[in-house]
Amino acid sequence: MEQYLVLFTFIGSLIALIFAGLTAKKVMKFSEGTERMKHISESIRQGANAYLKRQYSIVAIFFGGMFVLLCLMAAFNLLTWFVPFAFITGGLFSALSGFIGMKIATYANSRTANACREGLNKGLRVAFSAGSVMGFTVVGLGLFDISVWFFLLKFVFNLDANSITSAMLTFGMGASSMALFARVGGGIFTKAADVGADLVGKVEAGIPEDDPRNPAVIADNVGDNVGDVAGMGADLYESYVSSVISASALGVSAFGGDIKAMAVPMLLAAIGILMSIIGTFFVRTGENISQKLLLKALSRGTNISAIGIAIVALPVVILVLGKENWGLYVAILSGLVAGVLIGKSTEYYTSDTYRPTQKLAATSETGSATIIIGGLGLGMKSTAMPIGIVAVSVLISYFVSGGTNSAALGLYGIALSAVGMLSTLGITLATDAYGPVADNAGGIAEMSGLEPKVRERTDALDSLGNTTAATGKGFAIGSAALTALALVASYVDKIKSINPDADLSFDVVNPVVLIGLFIGACLPFVFAAFTMDSVGKAAQSVVKEVRRQFKEIKGLMEGEAEPDYASCVDLCTKASLREMVLPTVIAIVVPIVVGMVLGYKGVVGMLAGATVSGFLMAIFMSNSGGAWDNAKKYIESGVHDGKGSPQHKSAVVGDTVGDPFKDTSGPAINILIKLLSMVSIVFAALVVNYSLL
Amino acid sequence: MEQYLVLFTFIGSLIALIFAGLTAKKVMKFSEGTERMKHISESIRQGANAYLKRQYSIVAIFFGGMFVLLCLMAAFNLLTWFVPFAFITGGLFSALSGFIGMKIATYANSRTANACREGLNKGLRVAFSAGSVMGFTVVGLGLFDISVWFFLLKFVFNLDANSITSAMLTFGMGASSMALFARVGGGIFTKAADVGADLVGKVEAGIPEDDPRNPAVIADNVGDNVGDVAGMGADLYESYVSSVISASALGVSAFGGDIKAMAVPMLLAAIGILMSIIGTFFVRTGENISQKLLLKALSRGTNISAIGIAIVALPVVILVLGKENWGLYVAILSGLVAGVLIGKSTEYYTSDTYRPTQKLAATSETGSATIIIGGLGLGMKSTAMPIGIVAVSVLISYFVSGGTNSAALGLYGIALSAVGMLSTLGITLATDAYGPVADNAGGIAEMSGLEPKVRERTDALDSLGNTTAATGKGFAIGSAALTALALVASYVDKIKSINPDADLSFDVVNPVVLIGLFIGACLPFVFAAFTMDSVGKAAQSVVKEVRRQFKEIKGLMEGEAEPDYASCVDLCTKASLREMVLPTVIAIVVPIVVGMVLGYKGVVGMLAGATVSGFLMAIFMSNSGGAWDNAKKYIESGVHDGKGSPQHKSAVVGDTVGDPFKDTSGPAINILIKLLSMVSIVFAALVVNYSLL
Repeated sequence: MEQYLVLFTFIGSLIALIFAGLTAKKVMKFSEGTERMKHISESIRQGANAYLKRQYSIVAIFFGGMFVLLCLMAAFNLLTWFVPFAFITGGLFSALSGFIGMKIATYANSRTANACREGLNKGLRVAFSAGSVMGFTVVGLGLFDISVWFFLLKFVFNLDANSITSAMLTFGMGASSMALFARVGGGIFTKAADVGADLVGKVEAGIPEDDPRNPAVIADNVGDNVGDVAGMGADLYESYVSSVISASALGVSAFGGDIKAMAVPMLLAAIGILMSIIGTFFVRTGENISQKLLLKALSRGTNISAIGIAIVALPVVILVLGKENWGLYVAILSGLVAGVLIGKSTEYYTSDTYRPTQKLAATSETGSATIIIGGLGLGMKSTAMPIGIVAVSVLISYFVSGGTNSAALGLYGIALSAVGMLSTLGITLATDAYGPVADNAGGIAEMSGLEPKVRERTDALDSLGNTTAATGKGFAIGSAALTALALVASYVDKIKSINPDADLSFDVVNPVVLIGLFIGACLPFVFAAFTMDSVGKAAQSVVKEVRRQFKEIKGLMEGEAEPDYASCVDLCTKASLREMVLPTVIAIVVPIVVGMVLGYKGVVGMLAGATVSGFLMAIFMSNSGGAWDNAKKYIESGVHDGKGSPQHKSAVVGDTVGDPFKDTSGPAINILIKLLSMVSIVFAALVVNYSLL
Repeated sequence: MEQYLVLFTFIGSLIALIFAGLTAKKVMKFSEGTERMKHISESIRQGANAYLKRQYSIVAIFFGGMFVLLCLMAAFNLLTWFVPFAFITGGLFSALSGFIGMKIATYANSRTANACREGLNKGLRVAFSAGSVMGFTVVGLGLFDISVWFFLLKFVFNLDANSITSAMLTFGMGASSMALFARVGGGIFTKAADVGADLVGKVEAGIPEDDPRNPAVIADNVGDNVGDVAGMGADLYESYVSSVISASALGVSAFGGDIKAMAVPMLLAAIGILMSIIGTFFVRTGENISQKLLLKALSRGTNISAIGIAIVALPVVILVLGKENWGLYVAILSGLVAGVLIGKSTEYYTSDTYRPTQKLAATSETGSATIIIGGLGLGMKSTAMPIGIVAVSVLISYFVSGGTNSAALGLYGIALSAVGMLSTLGITLATDAYGPVADNAGGIAEMSGLEPKVRERTDALDSLGNTTAATGKGFAIGSAALTALALVASYVDKIKSINPDADLSFDVVNPVVLIGLFIGACLPFVFAAFTMDSVGKAAQSVVKEVRRQFKEIKGLMEGEAEPDYASCVDLCTKASLREMVLPTVIAIVVPIVVGMVLGYKGVVGMLAGATVSGFLMAIFMSNSGGAWDNAKKYIESGVHDGKGSPQHKSAVVGDTVGDPFKDTSGPAINILIKLLSMVSIVFAALVVNYSLL
């Protein structure tokens, strides 16, 4: 039976990739529009390609170094020889997910703008199709990598379950490392360009957003693609893959090495793909520009997919694992529901249709300081609901799965709930990734001087993208917390497999665990600080360059001369690549150092601390940022004296602070907490054998 | 021997109180200055008194309710009958500490201003003497309460060691509750007044700070007294008392109920008092206005005290506990050193003589948004060093004290290190509390139109106060973390004493502990959000009132009419008292609810989570706030185009955001994490007997 389960998973991954390919073809058939539009789209594409090329060449050095290190460890029998190769493929596929997503996005932007000339629904279809390409590429590649490795390790090399999970967790580490590079690098790029363009263009020179006279405008649009698309693609590839393999790993100890328990998470993922594809066919809208109707169009698709999984998962769990394990189905369901609820809570705190963001907008009446205080407070307060949701979901998953009798079973339940949460990723990512495409389309419409109603339509699509992005972030954060918990449990399993006599109590009152907890909890703070600093530094260099061009290029403001777009793109590229290295290195070095000094007990404390504080910081930063952004948009809609008023200026300050919060530091923390666990797992043998304490 | 140890402690407390009384008399002998000065001082005094009166009447209701609740629990045998009374005295003495400190501060402000007319050294002596009154009142009352209760429980009622510690921990809970009310209420008052006065007076109307035409100027000065003096007094009374009793409580389990181990922390505190008194005699300066010399004057005092304790503690530990326990002396020393190092780290991150704050000031060049991002990043980054210092200190204390053989001994060592850190509180608090006195003196000098050189001198004293306040905060935060850890250990002891068969493993991988960890870590975030919101709300009402007065009172701006100071004081009073209730109620209700639902394992997780994330948040918020404040002052000193420039305006925004960070939310979190533990301990019997899980 096991082979068929793997085969089914493999076929699921192929279907996703084929669907992505066909959708991409469909997108490419649309016209790119006028010459001017083609030209602009081409510039954005070139900038984005150039960035990724240079990013990959730097990342390649890192992966090369790690490969050698892992080979050395394998040579000393601290790892199997599969590990270095698994590490490389994880990184490769993660990068590929981002790359393909970005490619299609940069081809779809002008096409979306052009489609919007004909109608809102057509525009939605193009943008959403581009998002779907990305969504299904991510899940397809993820499941492809998982199923092929699993097949090789199990049926070709005949490894035992423990060795299989070790190798697969390493490929998760590869994916996470790549994702962190992509998120941090792309996040710095996009926010540096955005802040730079806004501060000088909008605030100082008083020209509108996306005005072609602004030298940073192309960089800004490139940023959307390398940050919000390529970065997000690599990120969610990592989330998806990590949740599946961590659940598989825990399946091993829960079912005493039974391969079926390892296959269930993959199976769920495969079913999720099929349901997501079905869901995409239900996404369409009329010509009425209404956020409500648009949101309904997208929600219809995701809801149908979710309901489909909720129905199909029950027989799957019962058929594969037996009637007595029906509780695991409840765990999956609780994850699915928790994901939706966290998304709703994010929406409540960050959408201007609810009181928190409206009240935040009102604090602009007394200036920038009060809107900053208000936004920080809002973000901090917004941590309570997701914490409660995750708490309830974890307790349900653990106890209903049978954690009272077997802790391993309970932990497997928690891991499966993360898989449940991400099972609809194909379509949720599509609704998420379409946002930056619409954003870019708006930029192109503006720069090409298309009629205002086109911009109206792209704006409607873009604005909806903010809401779906918030929901998507909810899923990413929630699944990150659950996956990280599952990975902590995997780490403990790993220690047991290395040294069966190891003392596996990790009492919070034990000072070593406690110190680990302190250090771990500190990491997201320091990490957030570093990434924010980087955005600040990069943005300042863009500000200076834009100011210089405004001053030195004659006739620029009159529209008689073209600005030097390329220099801004180049600046952002250099700055973000320079700044992306340190945070990633920290994430890899710290767990090794902590392990070597404090031992594996300290590591468990560190992982728990990082997960808890990382979860809080990620929600805090994402929601503060989202609320500021929407409070600004809310004011722009005409309340509190509208655009150009002192209140609006204060709101712009809030939004600028929120930019690195929500698009750089916050999402990167999600990856950080998982990468810490995976690094710890990969280097566990080193720590067990050679640590100080 | 035990009686003598207690007697010695009691005498130590009396000496502190007598010294405080004599110093107060000395302060009162100085002249209050001109009629105008007397009048202003009187207004401030009246406002502060009125506030405290109303605060106490609200707090009395709370204490009455809790008293009844505790009596009920005692009636059901869930507590001893000493507990309700201990709870009341803790609250009473904490309130008294704040009250006396505020009294002397409001008498010393005009006297300091007047002394500054004669010379800098004289001004320093008056302000520092007032600070000393507060410092020695706090430690005197704290040790008095501890030694009297201990004497009664041990020698009059002949209770066993466990019952003694229970009762004493309740009096800690009383002190903590009072401290939280005082810190939160006072913190909201002072910042609402400050923000209100600044936003309308300085920014909108363009009049200088402390200008008598500003209707909020008296409220601002009242705020310094009720927040920075009365709030801090209650706060540090709580810190001091908590550290001593938590160490005493752990001494019980470490030495199997030997009273000597319980007495050592008290003894250390008593020695600290004597050394602190000696230290005060070394505080004097010349007439040269130099921050360096002034700082040296104060440091001389604290250093001499610290060295004194470091010398005397060794024979004390060896004589009382035996040669074999020399390791406990090292623990004390490590706490003393850790306190100094955390203070230095705070200074490094927040003083404008170092790079971080200078770089922060430079970010004002690109506007408010970048200085906000920079300050948040700085604060987050600054958590790493204190975490490292505490980590090393905890490990040293634990292992050198003998934690490898007996965990109880190791935990006692950690608790003693907190006592070591706070042993010099008498003098460190004096150097800390003198700041607001100097600040007030400056305000009075300005409002009374004294010659500019007086203001120069008070400014020099005030500015130094910022540095000593930062150091003081380092001690408060560091000791809070260590004390909270000790209290978690006490909680575990308590569970053991209630149910000797209880399963005392608190594995971080256990989902109940984990969920507790998540909830606990979330509390400081939510708590910070609530207190910041409160400041925002209160400040907005002040802003509106000040704007109204400027508009409606004719001749105000011309100096021909007096503003209605009392209405601003009244507004701040009402707003802060209304807002102070919810946060305190949360701190008391949450541990009970978590305990009743998740059981004691969940509580331990919650306490660990709250300690870890509270420590991080407190440092982050205090240091961000301190750095913004000093970056603004740095710019005012003339760099980055100085006062009135756009850069300065950006820095003012940063400072305004920082106000609630450093003076309301940050310090309150320190109290929160201890209060959570004490509430948990007091309600432990309820949880063990009736919880759901």
